[in-house]
Amino acid sequence: MTESWATFGADLHLELGTGGQAGGAGGRGVRAGLVAALREAVRSGRLAAGTRLPSSRQLAADLGVARNTVADAYAELVAAGWLTARQGSGTRVAARPVPPARPPERTGPAYSLVPGSPDLAGFPRAAWLAAARRALTEAPHEAFGYGDPRGRNELRVVLAEYLARARGVYADPGRVVTCAGFVHGLQLLGRVLLDRGVRAVGVDPYTLDIHRDLLAGAGLTTVPVEPSELPGEGVGAVLLTPAHQFPTGSALSAERRAELVGWARESGGWLLEDDYDGEFRYDRQLVGALQGLDPERVVYFGTASKSLAPGLRIGWLVVPAALLDEVVGAKGLSDWTSSALEQLTLAQFMASGAYDRHVRAMRLRYRRRRDQLCAALAEGAPHVRVSGVAAGLHAVLELPPGTERSVVAAAAGLGLRVEGLSRYRHPDSVRPPRSALVVGYASPPDSAWSPTLSTLCAALRATGPHGRRNSSPPGGAAQPPGAGRVRGAGPG
Amino acid sequence: MTESWATFGADLHLELGTGGQAGGAGGRGVRAGLVAALREAVRSGRLAAGTRLPSSRQLAADLGVARNTVADAYAELVAAGWLTARQGSGTRVAARPVPPARPPERTGPAYSLVPGSPDLAGFPRAAWLAAARRALTEAPHEAFGYGDPRGRNELRVVLAEYLARARGVYADPGRVVTCAGFVHGLQLLGRVLLDRGVRAVGVDPYTLDIHRDLLAGAGLTTVPVEPSELPGEGVGAVLLTPAHQFPTGSALSAERRAELVGWARESGGWLLEDDYDGEFRYDRQLVGALQGLDPERVVYFGTASKSLAPGLRIGWLVVPAALLDEVVGAKGLSDWTSSALEQLTLAQFMASGAYDRHVRAMRLRYRRRRDQLCAALAEGAPHVRVSGVAAGLHAVLELPPGTERSVVAAAAGLGLRVEGLSRYRHPDSVRPPRSALVVGYASPPDSAWSPTLSTLCAALRATGPHGRRNSSPPGGAAQPPGAGRVRGAGPG
Repeated sequence: MTESWATFGADLHLELGTGGQAGGAGGRGVRAGLVAALREAVRSGRLAAGTRLPSSRQLAADLGVARNTVADAYAELVAAGWLTARQGSGTRVAARPVPPARPPERTGPAYSLVPGSPDLAGFPRAAWLAAARRALTEAPHEAFGYGDPRGRNELRVVLAEYLARARGVYADPGRVVTCAGFVHGLQLLGRVLLDRGVRAVGVDPYTLDIHRDLLAGAGLTTVPVEPSELPGEGVGAVLLTPAHQFPTGSALSAERRAELVGWARESGGWLLEDDYDGEFRYDRQLVGALQGLDPERVVYFGTASKSLAPGLRIGWLVVPAALLDEVVGAKGLSDWTSSALEQLTLAQFMASGAYDRHVRAMRLRYRRRRDQLCAALAEGAPHVRVSGVAAGLHAVLELPPGTERSVVAAAAGLGLRVEGLSRYRHPDSVRPPRSALVVGYASPPDSAWSPTLSTLCAALRATGPHGRRNSSPPGGAAQPPGAGRVRGAGPG
Repeated sequence: MTESWATFGADLHLELGTGGQAGGAGGRGVRAGLVAALREAVRSGRLAAGTRLPSSRQLAADLGVARNTVADAYAELVAAGWLTARQGSGTRVAARPVPPARPPERTGPAYSLVPGSPDLAGFPRAAWLAAARRALTEAPHEAFGYGDPRGRNELRVVLAEYLARARGVYADPGRVVTCAGFVHGLQLLGRVLLDRGVRAVGVDPYTLDIHRDLLAGAGLTTVPVEPSELPGEGVGAVLLTPAHQFPTGSALSAERRAELVGWARESGGWLLEDDYDGEFRYDRQLVGALQGLDPERVVYFGTASKSLAPGLRIGWLVVPAALLDEVVGAKGLSDWTSSALEQLTLAQFMASGAYDRHVRAMRLRYRRRRDQLCAALAEGAPHVRVSGVAAGLHAVLELPPGTERSVVAAAAGLGLRVEGLSRYRHPDSVRPPRSALVVGYASPPDSAWSPTLSTLCAALRATGPHGRRNSSPPGGAAQPPGAGRVRGAGPG
């Protein structure tokens, strides 16, 4: 077999007609076929303006034709305006008349206190790159292949050590399964529970709506479990955020923990512990993982989404022995494994101590933010009670009954996006709705932080006892007319 | 709020009893509680041998107790053998008696020609790290957050340009959706097709079993479509590998392409094009993507699993306009997005030309492997006909009828793992089964390549016309007695 194609350069796919096939008619036929194929590729838009074509030498080798044939075809198309040729920049597809510019996209609100994201500017880029370098240097060749559906062993060993030390989790590397974040992990468990005959999952009366939707999509009904009650008949598992309830911000009491573990043991049910921000606590109260109480009844879910960045899409489960094979089986079906290189990078990052350092640094930063939020509210909106701030990245601002919607609307009118608590309320919850805001204070950039706080206070004042309060029915069920058009309530 | 915890060091979770709470009883009670909590954490195995504990200064700050209290507790546990303290290495959990070493894991076969993996040793580590560095340097902060379910725009722009140029795909960045590899992509499409009422998907009579299983798991029936027929009534989509059929190795003819596109247009059906190894072709025959014939009826699936490494878990779809919203919706449910950093790294890798260079280098390497395989077979097992070698990373070795199982067994007896074609045959296919091997020649390490070829030839000779041929029923349906116990047929 001869070296019929060039071993250098870039690939270019061309649909040459039969007459233009290499080895067919003479040079002129080949050249005509090449010109037609290139023109068609440009005309149809497949080759975009600016696309660099291979050199005539390379394309000639690839097609098995004389170099001059390609050079002549290029020259013909340059002359006709289809291609451009410039010294040093090669042959490229010519720009065509630019369509009129689209109007700029509508800009969103200037400020946002929507919860759910850590401080993205705090991602430790240099330390992460150093870890990636070590991971790429040390990885065995097999790491680049299809791997163990549980994930890379290197990461599972480091995670087991970290979770035991820092979160009080009983974790053997064999029980750790990596995944692409909490949503992926919950999908896996949803499938496993469904296969085991579970039909209903208990959730807190206030929970993240996308988690409820996800369980519903997996064919599971969600049932609100009020804090004073045990899960009802037919509930096979309960989803919880014990370290820092989302969205209300409370920690699960020791009594309630014992009660739920007792329920799980007696009923054969499962507790699904979403430890999404357990690394971030700001006082001396130790809030370890619920899993430590009974590793055989609690499925532990952790994630790098809050401690590092959601964009990594790395999470982990610690799975009871009885469920392990089923979870690993579901994982194998779902996507085999997450990126091996990122798993190895995270393993290096954690083993070097960089993860602990990063968490400590961010904890300090978030606590300062939390303190500034509380101070601003005490000064600028003293009628608002702040709760749920002992841990995590968000606070709950209790509002006068029935004012939630008007505050959210007033904030929107001032350029601040903020979420009410009511959107998280389970539709079947029997308790009366609370009027409150869920304020994520981790993600605003430093430059926007001070005006964000001022705007929040202004929105709260505009609807508070001393402001122009919009009358709205108790329960905040209806949008009062005129909400969102609050005037004369600028920041400061 | 005071600075109640240390801003340095590593986190350690301890379950202090009520009596031992900081601020409770005096120093002695705190110390006793600390000793008990640490002992319990070590005794129960939560803190593994070798785990490094925080310094006494840090732990004291975290717990809000006097440093001496922690130092005394550590000293007591060191004296009792629970912990060790060495200059420079800090305080660690002591090693406990080591359980007897487990017997070493059973080693697998010495050699393997199982298809499906590229050359993992060829992963371009240095170039990938350089791309990762650029990606980490240039990424905007928002890249670390929850992203567009379609994937990073930077990557989709580069992919669209590459696919148009090199694979003949009509690709607009807005139509490109990244995913975690082909399996993930097929899951997404399976859900979309099911929601549209599709119940049956046509496949080639020989196809990858895990793809059939995946479709079946999604609730879709797979139906074999013989090469001479059009899909039957009720078939809503056809899964194809047009550039290099897996496993038979043929390219889809121009006539068959036109026929299938015609079927899709007339019936409203969809063609799912799995372009898994389209980058690797070894002759002048241009095999562009089927998608170029009709971008509105063909869903194009590409992947980095063969061109770079399966461990990256990156693939991409180019989706017809009519299906785009549904695919993006399914993607958003499935895992939101794949790792943003790896997507940005791949974008940098492709934009810099490193991807084209890597593909060209690997193409040369694989073609040499292919040529060596063909030469070894011509010399050592001339009765075997080789096919499917114009492209891709595997070859099909046609065997005398009825000998497939005995060849696979003979190879296993010689320490070579190799797969028969029959495992890929759809159980409902009506054509008589072929007796053949599917040989993946990309992945054996260089050091094993020559003995792998010798062993393959020996196994083929052992059962070939001139060897000790095991009699087995035509069709290879039953395992002949004694297969796998071929004697006197060593390599060479």
